[in-house]
Amino acid sequence: MPEQERHARQCLHLETLQQRYSDALETHGYDALLIASGAAPMRYADDHGYAFQGFGPFVHWTGLTDVEHSWLLIRPGRQALLQLYTPVDFWHATASLPDEPWARELELTASPERRPPALDGLGRLAVIGDPAALTDLPGTHNPADLLADLEATRILKTGYEIECLDLANARAADGHRAAREAFLAGASEFEISLAYQQATAQREVEAPYHSIIGLNDHAGILHYQYYDTARPQQPRSLLIDAGYRFRGYGSDITRTTAAPGEGMFQALVAGVESLQKRLCDAVVPGMDFVELHRKTHLGLAALLSSAGLVRGLDEETQVAEGITRAFFPHGLGHLLGVQVHDVGGRPVPPPADAPFLRLTRRLEPGMVVTVEPGLYFIPSLLKPVMQGRLGNQLDHGLIDELWGCGGIRIEDNVEVTDNGACNLTRRHLP
Amino acid sequence: MPEQERHARQCLHLETLQQRYSDALETHGYDALLIASGAAPMRYADDHGYAFQGFGPFVHWTGLTDVEHSWLLIRPGRQALLQLYTPVDFWHATASLPDEPWARELELTASPERRPPALDGLGRLAVIGDPAALTDLPGTHNPADLLADLEATRILKTGYEIECLDLANARAADGHRAAREAFLAGASEFEISLAYQQATAQREVEAPYHSIIGLNDHAGILHYQYYDTARPQQPRSLLIDAGYRFRGYGSDITRTTAAPGEGMFQALVAGVESLQKRLCDAVVPGMDFVELHRKTHLGLAALLSSAGLVRGLDEETQVAEGITRAFFPHGLGHLLGVQVHDVGGRPVPPPADAPFLRLTRRLEPGMVVTVEPGLYFIPSLLKPVMQGRLGNQLDHGLIDELWGCGGIRIEDNVEVTDNGACNLTRRHLP
Repeated sequence: MPEQERHARQCLHLETLQQRYSDALETHGYDALLIASGAAPMRYADDHGYAFQGFGPFVHWTGLTDVEHSWLLIRPGRQALLQLYTPVDFWHATASLPDEPWARELELTASPERRPPALDGLGRLAVIGDPAALTDLPGTHNPADLLADLEATRILKTGYEIECLDLANARAADGHRAAREAFLAGASEFEISLAYQQATAQREVEAPYHSIIGLNDHAGILHYQYYDTARPQQPRSLLIDAGYRFRGYGSDITRTTAAPGEGMFQALVAGVESLQKRLCDAVVPGMDFVELHRKTHLGLAALLSSAGLVRGLDEETQVAEGITRAFFPHGLGHLLGVQVHDVGGRPVPPPADAPFLRLTRRLEPGMVVTVEPGLYFIPSLLKPVMQGRLGNQLDHGLIDELWGCGGIRIEDNVEVTDNGACNLTRRHLP
Repeated sequence: MPEQERHARQCLHLETLQQRYSDALETHGYDALLIASGAAPMRYADDHGYAFQGFGPFVHWTGLTDVEHSWLLIRPGRQALLQLYTPVDFWHATASLPDEPWARELELTASPERRPPALDGLGRLAVIGDPAALTDLPGTHNPADLLADLEATRILKTGYEIECLDLANARAADGHRAAREAFLAGASEFEISLAYQQATAQREVEAPYHSIIGLNDHAGILHYQYYDTARPQQPRSLLIDAGYRFRGYGSDITRTTAAPGEGMFQALVAGVESLQKRLCDAVVPGMDFVELHRKTHLGLAALLSSAGLVRGLDEETQVAEGITRAFFPHGLGHLLGVQVHDVGGRPVPPPADAPFLRLTRRLEPGMVVTVEPGLYFIPSLLKPVMQGRLGNQLDHGLIDELWGCGGIRIEDNVEVTDNGACNLTRRHLP
């Protein structure tokens, strides 16, 4: 049964983490590591807190994203200890663990106290977590060299993690289908967000990141943060960038839909999608992701030429002159995991021509990356080019027609395998 | 036209604030006050921030709940200055002010910088806001004596504020009707939350507080924080505590619905509702809210007797023995405003028998309070009583039948007027 398989994989995942963490602790001379789940801070001068989302290393071990004031104690050669905060509390529902095999791999305790378990006699102790949770604790807090090595344990996913990301893609795919249908039926951004929530059975605050739902020119605001409740008079385009979080692991998928009658924009969507699929095919072990980002710019230059948006400039010139960057200002992708922009992607800073690129590694089997080229009509970026030295090479009339469609992004989640790649998104959303 | 009236009232509101703030500044010897809108903190070790909700005093002046990195400068005898943060940002939609009369009451500037406006030559300066936003600023930061007086400016609402709270009640009433219908149609907690969002056109993160939606025994967890996606096999009860935020002002309404066939529970709901209406009628200027909280306990004792849940103990004895507190552990209500538990309600701490009471003032015209008695079946509170000295006075069989209904809360928002009160909720949700 698939669920039993996942349980077995999750137990193996914990064994792998135990090994990786033990190695890192040994390297840096620690005998024990305490991980704080953390807790949501309170708003200043208010009696309400922020919505909590768990601390990466705690979620990496437990998959529990909503557990506050709890602790994990890791020691080489010993079973990991999970202390769950379970106050006698008639105000809130208290946490409980699922009765699943992985939970039996841990030593479990419940405590009505927010304090960590006893820390005497553990030897050299490191403690990691939000410093607000670590007040008055012994040990070395958030040592940078150890933290870097612990982050590195998240770069190559275990089989369990891949499966979680696959399930997160499957559920998000249902949401994307529902969103597209709602758009074609004339829904507002707000209504589309409800359709997405309903299809995924996921609340807004549980999502791995704020779901971006932009109609028309809003599709050109990269992290557009509102949902308009008014239906547009004339729906022209939908860009939806939304995922689903399964046991902490988030999918991160973008689709762009042209309304019927938007032939020119539809052709561009098809062009970006075709480029995006070629880029996904180029995901193989050994590929330098910075190189793939640069290939994206060349591919976009070809598309800009064939669509007639740019005339008389070859691809290399378009890239060198910054024209493709005005249409595509962000990075090609990032690592994916228990955080949507997972840690460990930038061992070296990105090059000057790709300042927003979040992944500067060569690809290795076990990485899961997003591949998300885009093509946008953003006035603050395009107008300076249109009014600049090469402005006449751009078709202003065509661009003027397309401002109102905002932009295009197509994004899949891709696992790097031993021989190539597995597209976790297209399995569910062809 | 109603909207024009509101605009006129909002201008008067700003004049009132200017007067109240000038008085407070003069009292404490300040020439100028800088108010930080603040900004959402980032999550530790993540590149995502928390969902922002504005700082009380900033919202009190502007009604803007989602504006970050902006500033208000208040000086006696001078027009207030509002500096809006408007970066050139292709990542996010930037803030803009509505073209409305109140905005013309302020001196408006836009800035691409997160720094406050120039602060030279202002004399003695006080600065208030989240300390995280105040690093490196001159002046006295968050002085306690001034802050207390500024909080006091929020206790008596202006006509504009009453109108905002009324509109917030009107919209929330639509949500409560939709939630009740969804419940009676067999919906899950999650589906009811979607129905509430749809009817109010309000996102989960925009709500004045986390909407509590509890079916069956979940109705007995006071601040139940989840939404179950599974429909219950047998729906017995719905408790929904949810509001709507209009220009910062939040309504805070609770309704409890018994499923068809739950005659005993339905009778208790009717009993609590009848008590709640009598308490609302007792809202008049001069009434001590602590006294009203105590009357609630006597009224609940009478209900427990008449329903047969408690036998052979008079009302005073039930209260003195803590029996009513086991059924109703929270406070009767609180002030309402730009924060759902508005500031200034506890000039003195609550008495020992009402530790969770958030309002210890005598009522005055202009206050808006919630009136929210409850009656719950909470095992951690009731079982000790049932097993204690007076345990035989409780009808265990009846209680055992009712655990699965969780509990009851009925909550309205009530304006204290010169002669009595105006129930802002029942106008829209009779």
